[in-house]
Amino acid sequence: MWPKETINAGILIIGNEILSGQVQDVNLSFMATHLQEMGIRLKEARVVADVEDGIVTAVRALSSQMDYVFTTGGIGPTHDDITAACMAKAFDRPLVCSLEALRRLYERYPSPRAPEALTRMTVMPAGATLIDNTVSAAPGFQIENVYVMAGIPAIMQAMFKNLMPTLRKGPRLHSREVVGAVVEGVIAQGLEDLDKAYPHVEIGSYPYWISETNHGVRIVIKGTNENEVTRVENAVTDLMDRYRAL
Amino acid sequence: MWPKETINAGILIIGNEILSGQVQDVNLSFMATHLQEMGIRLKEARVVADVEDGIVTAVRALSSQMDYVFTTGGIGPTHDDITAACMAKAFDRPLVCSLEALRRLYERYPSPRAPEALTRMTVMPAGATLIDNTVSAAPGFQIENVYVMAGIPAIMQAMFKNLMPTLRKGPRLHSREVVGAVVEGVIAQGLEDLDKAYPHVEIGSYPYWISETNHGVRIVIKGTNENEVTRVENAVTDLMDRYRAL
Repeated sequence: MWPKETINAGILIIGNEILSGQVQDVNLSFMATHLQEMGIRLKEARVVADVEDGIVTAVRALSSQMDYVFTTGGIGPTHDDITAACMAKAFDRPLVCSLEALRRLYERYPSPRAPEALTRMTVMPAGATLIDNTVSAAPGFQIENVYVMAGIPAIMQAMFKNLMPTLRKGPRLHSREVVGAVVEGVIAQGLEDLDKAYPHVEIGSYPYWISETNHGVRIVIKGTNENEVTRVENAVTDLMDRYRAL
Repeated sequence: MWPKETINAGILIIGNEILSGQVQDVNLSFMATHLQEMGIRLKEARVVADVEDGIVTAVRALSSQMDYVFTTGGIGPTHDDITAACMAKAFDRPLVCSLEALRRLYERYPSPRAPEALTRMTVMPAGATLIDNTVSAAPGFQIENVYVMAGIPAIMQAMFKNLMPTLRKGPRLHSREVVGAVVEGVIAQGLEDLDKAYPHVEIGSYPYWISETNHGVRIVIKGTNENEVTRVENAVTDLMDRYRAL
């Protein structure tokens, strides 16, 4: 489906709260949707704990394989916020205080009650570029091809929207859906034939199961060539109609 | 927080639909919650596409690092269901037809409309053990330390509940929460002091931000020693009260 010059992205979600089930992650699906709109392929996502080794290993692996890496979580002022230090370690850079981040924080909180804790959010790897935080001022940052953002969804989303215009865009992806109360196995052969006939179109088959009497399948068709996508969509609709009628 | 003999687990979520943002994953948080209850540490989760290389690499990496690996997705009857083949490749085993899986499927669907597609769900690595599927009969399977399950949440949850009694359990984890409309930075030093004083208790600080006038922090305290957890909980409550009063 993706052409040769595809722009690949990885996501790294940092936080014990996701791995303990305390918090349902919503950042992945938010970014996934926007990356898809920009024609950027999200190739892999990882969720790791607030532990240095795990973060450093994962960010190095993703950074070397992807064009862009987006991380969320661990950039606040408390002892368990270790993302900035891990990024410095992963890219072998010293940690510095960003004077611009400091200026922004003091502009927003002129007489902070915990000035030292506030400064923790200005410490980042040397050479990092700030990512604007229009919600609570404390910026994210970019280091090499890695974009380091907050974990709080409202703040992460604001940061991501700010950096979206700066990302390279891929070819526009056309996406169609055909849903029907058809048993997946019945149309499997037809789908496989279509999959072979249209190698540049991705055909995903996602069964749903609500109850014994209410289940079926959702077929998602995607590609950069709109004509091909439309042809596959029509063929899948015919396939569904044929077996629904039985 | 976790003692030396900790049981570690990894999760591998397989599916283009999650990486494209089409589907919000809910399997991770379901398993995360239950693993925590069983005293098993979920150390890392990965989300990969329906692509052989990515699946094989990820499952090998997780299988070698963890005691248990749980995968979801890609075991249906269509062309994009390649998980079983990838597991065979990852563990260098031939693919066979599980006669017991075949028996179960025919028992449930005595005159299948697409018998060939049905048999796809019986193909698995040699030596695999079946995981019961009480919802739609097609079983998952276990191969070495990897448990391969369906992606549909209702089916995955039924499979996971069936295999839970067979897993080793870790020490019971005690977990407490203290929530307050306090700026995170203000209690950062107090939290850090507690974190140092109680090295076996994990103190997580999770800020929330609903609006400019409604934000605060949720502190999650966890450990296997209930007395220590209670002491930290009381100290955090005092800390919150002190700063809330200001």
